[in-house]
Amino acid sequence: MPDTMQAVVKESRAPGLVVRTVPRPRAGPGEVLIAVHHAGVCGTDLHIADWDSWAQGRVRPPIVVGHEFAGQIVAVGEGVTELKVGQLVTAEGHIVCGHCLQCRTGNGHICRNTRIIGVDRDGAFAELISMPATNVLTLDGIPTEIGAIMDPMGNAFHTVLTADIPGSTVFIVGCGPIGCFAVGIARAAGAARVIASDVNPRRLDLARAMGAHVVINARETDVEAAVLGETNGEGVDVVCEMSGVPAALHQAFHTVRMGGRVQLLGIPKGDVPVNFADEIIFKGITVYGVIGRKMYETWHQMRRFLSAGLLDPRPVITHRFPLAHIDQAIAAIRSGDAGKVILEIA
Amino acid sequence: MPDTMQAVVKESRAPGLVVRTVPRPRAGPGEVLIAVHHAGVCGTDLHIADWDSWAQGRVRPPIVVGHEFAGQIVAVGEGVTELKVGQLVTAEGHIVCGHCLQCRTGNGHICRNTRIIGVDRDGAFAELISMPATNVLTLDGIPTEIGAIMDPMGNAFHTVLTADIPGSTVFIVGCGPIGCFAVGIARAAGAARVIASDVNPRRLDLARAMGAHVVINARETDVEAAVLGETNGEGVDVVCEMSGVPAALHQAFHTVRMGGRVQLLGIPKGDVPVNFADEIIFKGITVYGVIGRKMYETWHQMRRFLSAGLLDPRPVITHRFPLAHIDQAIAAIRSGDAGKVILEIA
Amino acid sequence: MPDTMQAVVKESRAPGLVVRTVPRPRAGPGEVLIAVHHAGVCGTDLHIADWDSWAQGRVRPPIVVGHEFAGQIVAVGEGVTELKVGQLVTAEGHIVCGHCLQCRTGNGHICRNTRIIGVDRDGAFAELISMPATNVLTLDGIPTEIGAIMDPMGNAFHTVLTADIPGSTVFIVGCGPIGCFAVGIARAAGAARVIASDVNPRRLDLARAMGAHVVINARETDVEAAVLGETNGEGVDVVCEMSGVPAALHQAFHTVRMGGRVQLLGIPKGDVPVNFADEIIFKGITVYGVIGRKMYETWHQMRRFLSAGLLDPRPVITHRFPLAHIDQAIAAIRSGDAGKVILEIA
Amino acid sequence: MPDTMQAVVKESRAPGLVVRTVPRPRAGPGEVLIAVHHAGVCGTDLHIADWDSWAQGRVRPPIVVGHEFAGQIVAVGEGVTELKVGQLVTAEGHIVCGHCLQCRTGNGHICRNTRIIGVDRDGAFAELISMPATNVLTLDGIPTEIGAIMDPMGNAFHTVLTADIPGSTVFIVGCGPIGCFAVGIARAAGAARVIASDVNPRRLDLARAMGAHVVINARETDVEAAVLGETNGEGVDVVCEMSGVPAALHQAFHTVRMGGRVQLLGIPKGDVPVNFADEIIFKGITVYGVIGRKMYETWHQMRRFLSAGLLDPRPVITHRFPLAHIDQAIAAIRSGDAGKVILEIA
Repeated sequence: MPDTMQAVVKESRAPGLVVRTVPRPRAGPGEVLIAVHHAGVCGTDLHIADWDSWAQGRVRPPIVVGHEFAGQIVAVGEGVTELKVGQLVTAEGHIVCGHCLQCRTGNGHICRNTRIIGVDRDGAFAELISMPATNVLTLDGIPTEIGAIMDPMGNAFHTVLTADIPGSTVFIVGCGPIGCFAVGIARAAGAARVIASDVNPRRLDLARAMGAHVVINARETDVEAAVLGETNGEGVDVVCEMSGVPAALHQAFHTVRMGGRVQLLGIPKGDVPVNFADEIIFKGITVYGVIGRKMYETWHQMRRFLSAGLLDPRPVITHRFPLAHIDQAIAAIRSGDAGKVILEIA
Repeated sequence: MPDTMQAVVKESRAPGLVVRTVPRPRAGPGEVLIAVHHAGVCGTDLHIADWDSWAQGRVRPPIVVGHEFAGQIVAVGEGVTELKVGQLVTAEGHIVCGHCLQCRTGNGHICRNTRIIGVDRDGAFAELISMPATNVLTLDGIPTEIGAIMDPMGNAFHTVLTADIPGSTVFIVGCGPIGCFAVGIARAAGAARVIASDVNPRRLDLARAMGAHVVINARETDVEAAVLGETNGEGVDVVCEMSGVPAALHQAFHTVRMGGRVQLLGIPKGDVPVNFADEIIFKGITVYGVIGRKMYETWHQMRRFLSAGLLDPRPVITHRFPLAHIDQAIAAIRSGDAGKVILEIA
Repeated sequence: MPDTMQAVVKESRAPGLVVRTVPRPRAGPGEVLIAVHHAGVCGTDLHIADWDSWAQGRVRPPIVVGHEFAGQIVAVGEGVTELKVGQLVTAEGHIVCGHCLQCRTGNGHICRNTRIIGVDRDGAFAELISMPATNVLTLDGIPTEIGAIMDPMGNAFHTVLTADIPGSTVFIVGCGPIGCFAVGIARAAGAARVIASDVNPRRLDLARAMGAHVVINARETDVEAAVLGETNGEGVDVVCEMSGVPAALHQAFHTVRMGGRVQLLGIPKGDVPVNFADEIIFKGITVYGVIGRKMYETWHQMRRFLSAGLLDPRPVITHRFPLAHIDQAIAAIRSGDAGKVILEIA
Repeated sequence: MPDTMQAVVKESRAPGLVVRTVPRPRAGPGEVLIAVHHAGVCGTDLHIADWDSWAQGRVRPPIVVGHEFAGQIVAVGEGVTELKVGQLVTAEGHIVCGHCLQCRTGNGHICRNTRIIGVDRDGAFAELISMPATNVLTLDGIPTEIGAIMDPMGNAFHTVLTADIPGSTVFIVGCGPIGCFAVGIARAAGAARVIASDVNPRRLDLARAMGAHVVINARETDVEAAVLGETNGEGVDVVCEMSGVPAALHQAFHTVRMGGRVQLLGIPKGDVPVNFADEIIFKGITVYGVIGRKMYETWHQMRRFLSAGLLDPRPVITHRFPLAHIDQAIAAIRSGDAGKVILEIA
């Protein structure tokens, strides 16, 4: 094997991403080396490309970017006994400490010492990546193009399945890729009624394709009235807020029923004024902040749903590019019309 | 309206049931009077007909039998404000005290002061029945023939939905009507794989019609080997034991995975020897005794599943008789080949 | 018995409360008549006395006020079988419909059809009150002066015991009577460390008397630094926000640990700007809106704690007045220095 | 440092344990080397000493025995960043695979690939032991003599804290060391009433010293009548079965209240006949098989309880011996009168 490989690199503290020939990584003790077949492009990658204030504060170039991927194990490091060369795998991109209170109590997804691939160490938009064996999950028959999007799909699984779904009414606010995955997951888990909203008709079409019973164009329709109308005026059991839009947050609180549950995944910028009395306390609701994927319950659930064919996420994949066309991939996301955008690497 | 009605009566302390003209009940304070449209016949009714030792110890003839039914409200008693004449309804047949520890902590289904219609007071195999308003649930568009079997279906909902189903592998042991309902519920709630076993091919056909991925004839196949074979040798996440057969109980413990859950609904006669170390403790499992329906979460879930069309229980209804043919209804159940047997009363 | 009784009455749509001779209530069907021994005065009573905008929108004078009480059953209405004349009792003041989604799923505390005694129907600042038997709980040896404050203590039990307390670090924000009860409950339930804050030194003394390990004067100390200092910089497992003060809400979010739980009971006026990303989502926390008492799990837990002597709430009772001195009782609360203020009626 | 150390060794496939000079272990990659200060002697060690059928089937001599210990880190292997030389620590003795379904879903305590120190690899009755860093927990001020018994205390924590304890009535069946720990944990976690039974008066004295409200000598008293008498005939909320005695298992099922919870830790030999209908199903109870310690929630809880002084387990330690007197330590356990027996090594 050659000593170098192609990779998408954040080269310097300035906007832009470049494709470069870089040294090939190796599998250290407890690690495996994976040949990347497919990788998913995420909003985080845009922040790094754009070199926004978050990226400036966190990322230290040069670094290989990308954190969503799947591929094949090509080497295993010392002490790795549970994984083998040749296995098709994906991986959790959050590398956690294993010793903090959160890690020790089954909440590694909020480990305070998390290091993320493609952000804090070399990532997955490359021909090869080395990963701690602990973070690696075998695909068990799931294709690598689906494996490559299990990271964002995992956000949707975490959001939906930490609520009680069978027989529930569910409102998905925001139909980006994660919202569309959430629609499909809620249907597969036995939701009685799934309502989805967005301002973009193409995204609403995707939501419908993933199984939404009702879609609401938030530009044209009074969202709160529509959701209450669909639920005898009671509101829904579960709201999954995937947009981060302040107006949508209020819709979440106004459309959840008394005693219901609001799952917050979308990230609003800055402060949003909330009427705690009317929007939360008097309603007796529960609000849950979703970050990452439960390590590794979420991955287990995902493999079960995908292996059993309970869910086909492929309609959400709208664009595919080779590694060299990373700029086109990023442009597709920027357009706002894309579902999931993936790189085909091998 | 006449002052009398037709009803199936346990007339004396001896085997048999008879159809008799009896006084028409009235709606007392807090009660509603319901014209019965459909009623379900249950194994309990056979025990009363047969006048077995359980019946001799509990039932005080003369009494109108039957506890599964649906119909239309024809009168409301003093103080009833939430229900109206003309509504189509079903009812929970367990009338509980409301004040004991169990009732006060959301566990009315195990109230120690429970009185059951058709067992401890007049029941539902009649043209009319009076019920406490608290026990009555509106059907909200569900047909009365389905409403009439929501009591046993509720046993199945209670059994299945007190486990975590989305993405799980589920083994239903015993495919009588409640087992067949359980198959359909597990599918609707997003089970990854539903396996069902019985010794009767007709019941296995019903289980398959309700959605079982795999059915096992326990007469012909090594049940434990088959279930382990379907689950990579790990066993299933959830077992629902609906048969009460001692050998099946051991199959339940041997086929549940480490850390899984066994829901016990079937009633074994007498003692069954159990190896607690190997069958329960070293496996780290949870075992739950299912009785009745959670009052009223189970009914709420059922209405949601049925209204949303997540589940069609009608394939399980195999026989229909008029009230006067109660003997034929009981004979059908005794044959062992029946699914659910119902009476068509109005 | 005479046909009249003394009571504290909201007589007209204007500020003020008056003591009046009014007709004696009777026990209707399903009700019991209770001779009030002790009653608790609550902030809600001040709103009604003051005739603020909330009171103007909801209360329809003339009405007997007061909703916290305990006393002795002196008569039982038709159909009441579980309660007897002579029993010492208290009661849940929220009268719920029993048929809505919330009531049917074990969440009567957020029934949308709730009617509150002393607000929507005659209340407890009187010699006698009639109550639905369902709402009445026997005291089982708990003195009536404690029984009279089980309503607000129940708010504290609901707040604390819906979190996981044994071994946890708990921060109680606001040391009014409910906050002080919460301190004692958290200690009794095995909290590893209980921290309490307020701006009033007398209230902090009460909190310490109820068992707080650490008290923080929010006027003099940097609350967030102090709480983080007590918890190795990690923050607490559980925050109970009992103040409704906007600055305290932010302290709640900033002092809860990653993955912790914030229970909101205090009612902020108007909108509070929240940084959802940093205060909730990235922390992966759960926020729960607390209203009323779980019907009736909270009451069951309370009786258990009080009967077992796990908690003595009496230090929180700082003032006692006869019914005729309702004005002094209200003035004591208005001073801001009072703990719990009770009326001694019989 | 010398290349050898003293250790208690199972030398050959025959009864007995010997003290031998053996090679000093080293810290491999991902491991730490710990100087053992205190170690706890367990029933498992007796099985190995006695070379019973279980031991013959599992243990492959020669091997250093012992799995309960605490001490000081003297060296850290490659890749270990979260632990440091000089830290006082204890460790979970179950070394799990990290990749199986159980490990991936937060249930490492029932990993099917578990290897146990002192059973499947060299153990802790030695001057030094090497352990995977993942399994090591810092003591944070807890003395090593307590650290050395956190393994069995963890069984008790796992048993008690997987039930809902605050305000509950709890019956501890069997007052060996783990039962006595359970008494203290239940008290610290806010149990309303703790009842304990055993046949040995010395053990009942220990249970009382740990805080039992009521102790029952099962030789002299009708256990079921006594427990029902203490609970108004209702039975207890939670039973912890720590004895493994068949008669006690039935007492567990007969004394738990309707809807209660039975935690099974004691290991009965062979089969025990159970009346599933009356003992489990009609009671609507939950039965949970306890094995090991939750990894690592149980350890986190234990450190919290011990650091906060909620529990002092030292009364349960009744015997202390130097390493060389392992035979006396084993004889003390065999007597049946001992609480916890520990070795003082450094």
